[in-house]
Amino acid sequence: MNTIQRTLIILFLTNFWASNAQVPEGYDLWLGYSKIENAATLENYRKVCSSIYFQQSSEISNTAKEELKRGLDKMLDQKTSFTNSHEKATSLVVATTNKLDNALLKILQSEIPKVQKNGFLIKSVNTGKKQQCIITAQDDAGLLYGVFRFLQLIQTEKAIDEIAILDNPRIDLRVLNHWDNLDRTVERGYAGFSLWNWQKLPESIDQRYIDYARANASIGINGTVLTNVNANALVLTPMYLEKVAALANVFRKYGIKIYLTARFSAPIEIGGLSTADPLDPEVQNWWDNKTKEIYKMIPDFGGFLVKANSEGQPGPQNYGRSHADGANMLAKSLQAFNGVVMWRAFVYSEHDPTDRAKQAYLEFVPFDGKFMDNVLIQSKNGPIDFQPREPFHPMFGAMPQTPLMMEFQITQEYLGFSTHLVFLPKLFEEVLQSDTYAKGKGSTVAKVIDGTLQGQKLTGIAGVSNIGNDLNWTGHPFAQANWFGFGRLAWNPNIASDQIAKEWLQLTYSSEPEFTKALIPMMINSREAVVNYMNPLGLHHIFDTGHHYGPGPWVSELSRPEWNPTYYHKADSLGVGFNRTRSGSNAISQYNKEFQTMIENLETCPEEYLLWFHHLPWDYKLQNGQTLWNGIALRYQKGVDQVEEMIATWNNMKQYVSENKYHETKMLLNIQLKEAKWWRDACLLYFQTFSKMPLPDGVDQPQHSLKHYKSLKFPFAPGIRPQWN
Amino acid sequence: MNTIQRTLIILFLTNFWASNAQVPEGYDLWLGYSKIENAATLENYRKVCSSIYFQQSSEISNTAKEELKRGLDKMLDQKTSFTNSHEKATSLVVATTNKLDNALLKILQSEIPKVQKNGFLIKSVNTGKKQQCIITAQDDAGLLYGVFRFLQLIQTEKAIDEIAILDNPRIDLRVLNHWDNLDRTVERGYAGFSLWNWQKLPESIDQRYIDYARANASIGINGTVLTNVNANALVLTPMYLEKVAALANVFRKYGIKIYLTARFSAPIEIGGLSTADPLDPEVQNWWDNKTKEIYKMIPDFGGFLVKANSEGQPGPQNYGRSHADGANMLAKSLQAFNGVVMWRAFVYSEHDPTDRAKQAYLEFVPFDGKFMDNVLIQSKNGPIDFQPREPFHPMFGAMPQTPLMMEFQITQEYLGFSTHLVFLPKLFEEVLQSDTYAKGKGSTVAKVIDGTLQGQKLTGIAGVSNIGNDLNWTGHPFAQANWFGFGRLAWNPNIASDQIAKEWLQLTYSSEPEFTKALIPMMINSREAVVNYMNPLGLHHIFDTGHHYGPGPWVSELSRPEWNPTYYHKADSLGVGFNRTRSGSNAISQYNKEFQTMIENLETCPEEYLLWFHHLPWDYKLQNGQTLWNGIALRYQKGVDQVEEMIATWNNMKQYVSENKYHETKMLLNIQLKEAKWWRDACLLYFQTFSKMPLPDGVDQPQHSLKHYKSLKFPFAPGIRPQWN
Repeated sequence: MNTIQRTLIILFLTNFWASNAQVPEGYDLWLGYSKIENAATLENYRKVCSSIYFQQSSEISNTAKEELKRGLDKMLDQKTSFTNSHEKATSLVVATTNKLDNALLKILQSEIPKVQKNGFLIKSVNTGKKQQCIITAQDDAGLLYGVFRFLQLIQTEKAIDEIAILDNPRIDLRVLNHWDNLDRTVERGYAGFSLWNWQKLPESIDQRYIDYARANASIGINGTVLTNVNANALVLTPMYLEKVAALANVFRKYGIKIYLTARFSAPIEIGGLSTADPLDPEVQNWWDNKTKEIYKMIPDFGGFLVKANSEGQPGPQNYGRSHADGANMLAKSLQAFNGVVMWRAFVYSEHDPTDRAKQAYLEFVPFDGKFMDNVLIQSKNGPIDFQPREPFHPMFGAMPQTPLMMEFQITQEYLGFSTHLVFLPKLFEEVLQSDTYAKGKGSTVAKVIDGTLQGQKLTGIAGVSNIGNDLNWTGHPFAQANWFGFGRLAWNPNIASDQIAKEWLQLTYSSEPEFTKALIPMMINSREAVVNYMNPLGLHHIFDTGHHYGPGPWVSELSRPEWNPTYYHKADSLGVGFNRTRSGSNAISQYNKEFQTMIENLETCPEEYLLWFHHLPWDYKLQNGQTLWNGIALRYQKGVDQVEEMIATWNNMKQYVSENKYHETKMLLNIQLKEAKWWRDACLLYFQTFSKMPLPDGVDQPQHSLKHYKSLKFPFAPGIRPQWN
Repeated sequence: MNTIQRTLIILFLTNFWASNAQVPEGYDLWLGYSKIENAATLENYRKVCSSIYFQQSSEISNTAKEELKRGLDKMLDQKTSFTNSHEKATSLVVATTNKLDNALLKILQSEIPKVQKNGFLIKSVNTGKKQQCIITAQDDAGLLYGVFRFLQLIQTEKAIDEIAILDNPRIDLRVLNHWDNLDRTVERGYAGFSLWNWQKLPESIDQRYIDYARANASIGINGTVLTNVNANALVLTPMYLEKVAALANVFRKYGIKIYLTARFSAPIEIGGLSTADPLDPEVQNWWDNKTKEIYKMIPDFGGFLVKANSEGQPGPQNYGRSHADGANMLAKSLQAFNGVVMWRAFVYSEHDPTDRAKQAYLEFVPFDGKFMDNVLIQSKNGPIDFQPREPFHPMFGAMPQTPLMMEFQITQEYLGFSTHLVFLPKLFEEVLQSDTYAKGKGSTVAKVIDGTLQGQKLTGIAGVSNIGNDLNWTGHPFAQANWFGFGRLAWNPNIASDQIAKEWLQLTYSSEPEFTKALIPMMINSREAVVNYMNPLGLHHIFDTGHHYGPGPWVSELSRPEWNPTYYHKADSLGVGFNRTRSGSNAISQYNKEFQTMIENLETCPEEYLLWFHHLPWDYKLQNGQTLWNGIALRYQKGVDQVEEMIATWNNMKQYVSENKYHETKMLLNIQLKEAKWWRDACLLYFQTFSKMPLPDGVDQPQHSLKHYKSLKFPFAPGIRPQWN
């Protein structure tokens, strides 16, 4: 290449960036596909991709081919071409196993039987004549996932000469839950409003629907629930089903099934019946017909997600029936179509004086074995509600005859909305690796939900979406990592969170070692930071009313006792914390003995769960010798300090990211710091009214009075339903 | 350039498009700045821009310099550089007049005195040594506008060798009105939700705020009202004012002032007073202090927009005071800071049996001369409410001692939302060029609002924004043209609408003559199409309740009489139309005699206003000999046919626009066609129940029954407040 050519290249590259400057960055998520900079690596990849034989056989494999071309075009900076047949020169073969020729089948005979549903094999083989890279799978979705993985390997500059990756998803249903309302508001949504433009559907297909599907397919997500669990029956009427079908037509090409939330009282509201009693034949008949109607329009419809008899939603208990009665009625309608019911276990009642943490277990565990085969019980990760830290839900492991589906929260209610950088895969990992002891040591939550512990045939995992119509999809640029990370853990719940952070950073920002070396720990530590500055030492649910954004430990006058933070922290002159041991609510009795024993004994109870399970005096001595009061105060301070460290780290990263991206995250980190201090000051001032103890050395003095913090009101905080204002 | 170099260029250009493919198009509006393709033209522009002397003197002129560089870099496909001094080689000089050297001042001595506030001069001059292009202005904003105009000239490939453009804005306040609520819903918003992310302000500055300001500055808009006229007082509290100030800091650099809506009862709601009586000294004092507080935070704050005593909003009449009392109270507080009050004339009362079309005039005209100098009365263009066609509001010309501000609607309530392609500058032009006869023939509405007819010192024009957080800002790609066109007409209300269409098409899509030749008429005709398929021959306000999207001529049971379509069309067995002549409501008495006479006489009454002013029998003979019934029916059909023609035109444009852009508009046009038919069928079936006459030849048979059309409900149509459902 001569000087003029070099200059031209530089000129055009410069121009390319200038040309893009006007469009806010972040839209392309982890699929930006930047050109491979290392010349030798690039050359090698170009060789591997020099002659591609892609055996197309379906809509989904066509998608895979398009994606392969799009990604390679950009990363290898050349036009990708395909050959029509498996020729001598073929360097890359992409085909399902039933389309591989006999020679390849023979070479791959030991691996191919191990490739399962949606799984894939990427292997470099020597055919005798030539080194070839093979991407294969049993089904088209597996092929699509294999292609996306291949592209990720290239973007992260992995060696692929002697590659051999056989990867099967561990969980069948990998599903996003959108809490999107038909008016496009999103309950607990902090990234703008719903992607679903119901007004313009079914005719107008927004490019975002396609890009949403691409992003999900790239991380293995294969299902999406379009509507809020606090459901509106109208989505089941023909006018909306037409719109749903249009989305299904888009998503189908990416291997994604659509699910809807079913409002239990729909037979009354849109069916004209006088009851929704699940044992009433007319009601069963109505759901049978509704289900047929749906499948006629959406042949691959996934099924229903149901929130019943919880927080005011109707359900079978309105008619004296059980959750099993309700779920099985819907399951019967869906059975013929291979549809499933995902029945939520997030239930608690203001008429039940039992510790809220115990109620779901009490309502569901007795029905183990009573649910039809196509019913999954979907439980939040902890027994309360998506707190910065909770112990795992005691239902995991306690219902061996029922598929338990994990419900994680990707959106950040109770976690600083899309304003705080909190890397959630670290939280997910903690839950998944928790030991239920259901079948002895090593009975992790991950093994419960992937079905290996108790032999479930149907498995599932759901994430409450953090996706909205913000230009960057998730509000905070780093919240994209939580969507990405959920997908990776849904595929394999045993991937380490730092590995996920690394993959995401490399795909989204840069593979520079200095960059990832600094940012992986920043992301990993961000989760403990939010625990420290919001809810340290097992404190929980001390958020202000409705919006759940800032602190409100003083709130005590809401109509339902368990909506009040004072219910959870029980601070008084003697101490603080919720006694859930045998001398208290005995919620620990719902866990297996090993866990119970560990928790009950203050010597062995992990301090991160201390005040979740114990009410302890202010001068209780922590393991490091600090009093409980000082420990609380110093953890709040530590949370603030950790955010300051995050800012310092980010300040050093300026050279690795674009100016806009740098400033965007910096501005948000500054808000996070301001609010971490707000949490620290408000909570310490409040708890100090009970402890009557001074702030220990090292803790900054509060900036305002407790009265000031109590006076702050946020009537228009995002994500809340108007009636909650 | 050798072959390899050419290939490289093609390679990189191709790659550039491929790289962009993932980001939905349309974000860059009319500021995409594509490279000049014609080699000779490019060469010439490069020459003119080869050596630029930019005399920077302020924040705004710095913006102008950045914009000049950004635009030239892309269009001329080279790095723009600037010289530090006015050298011999200088080819382009950009400076305010006070920074021009004496030689240039002498050359431009005849033009410079004609450059007014915010105006600019772009002139190519021969300095004796060299041909130079000069962009100059009295103020920095003028310089910014001059730079944007210069960039537009280049993008549309105008000859600039002998250029001489002296352009002054005809109206002082060129303002967008956002009906954005603090929860980010937008009343009558159809392009997603509010741009203003109150949750993350003031710290986090969204790139969209900057790009919004750029777009506005590029068309001369110099003010924006951030909040809904149905106002919430909270925006005037310190927490929100901090956020408003952060936006003001962004917009200031682009010459844009911020205004807020002032809820008249704010002294009670956030001030703790027991009254908002404008004659109460405590109330005046409260507004004085509030205004000072605002100006302390936002020194260039523009003032208040007020909707008072209209549709349930509080106002001075609650205390037995007049609009003048209310407006003057606020004007007093603002006077010291050069702030203005924009007081809306959109008032009507359910307690007033007078024809709604007459009420604003009756409430305001008697107070002509009673308003303080810094008060503008802001009137909608017509006497009802943003219908597809209305005669001009009789207040225009009727208040010679008061600055009347025009309120146009850029958003498309009553106009198919962002789903229908309707080019509104055609509507605006019709209003602006209407003759009020206030001072004899030629007393156009344009001359009333630009102050030349009656000698106003303060002039203003407002457009209710169609901007939301959709990726393309306005929902429909062609709705961008309505934002653009409003800006152009706010600058100069006499620009022809086809000129605006041409400019927008060239800047946004392509300068190909075949393209603009086909699309200019398509855009121009789109306005008459929507009149035909919704409200032909002067019919108006026959929209379904609340959402105002589809047809609802049958609606008759709303609590307020003038909310019912039947109030407006008055169809019965004898005929149809609202008699506003002397034998009817005599609304025509509010117009000047020449207009009255023309309207009252059926021979001279323009048929487009026929049923606005007259109730006529179904067999009344139109000018072409058709019966009224047949004329109505054929116009509905014609509207449908016109949409079909739009589709045919667009189908031929595939080669001129990107595939995504092509499909996006095509999908929307298909919805428009479906809904045009819906309007035709529903309205004709309904009116036929009165006319009892058959559909004439050439009108398609309805697809459904009237009962079907009446049954359609849209509880989640965008843009409506929940309480209106």
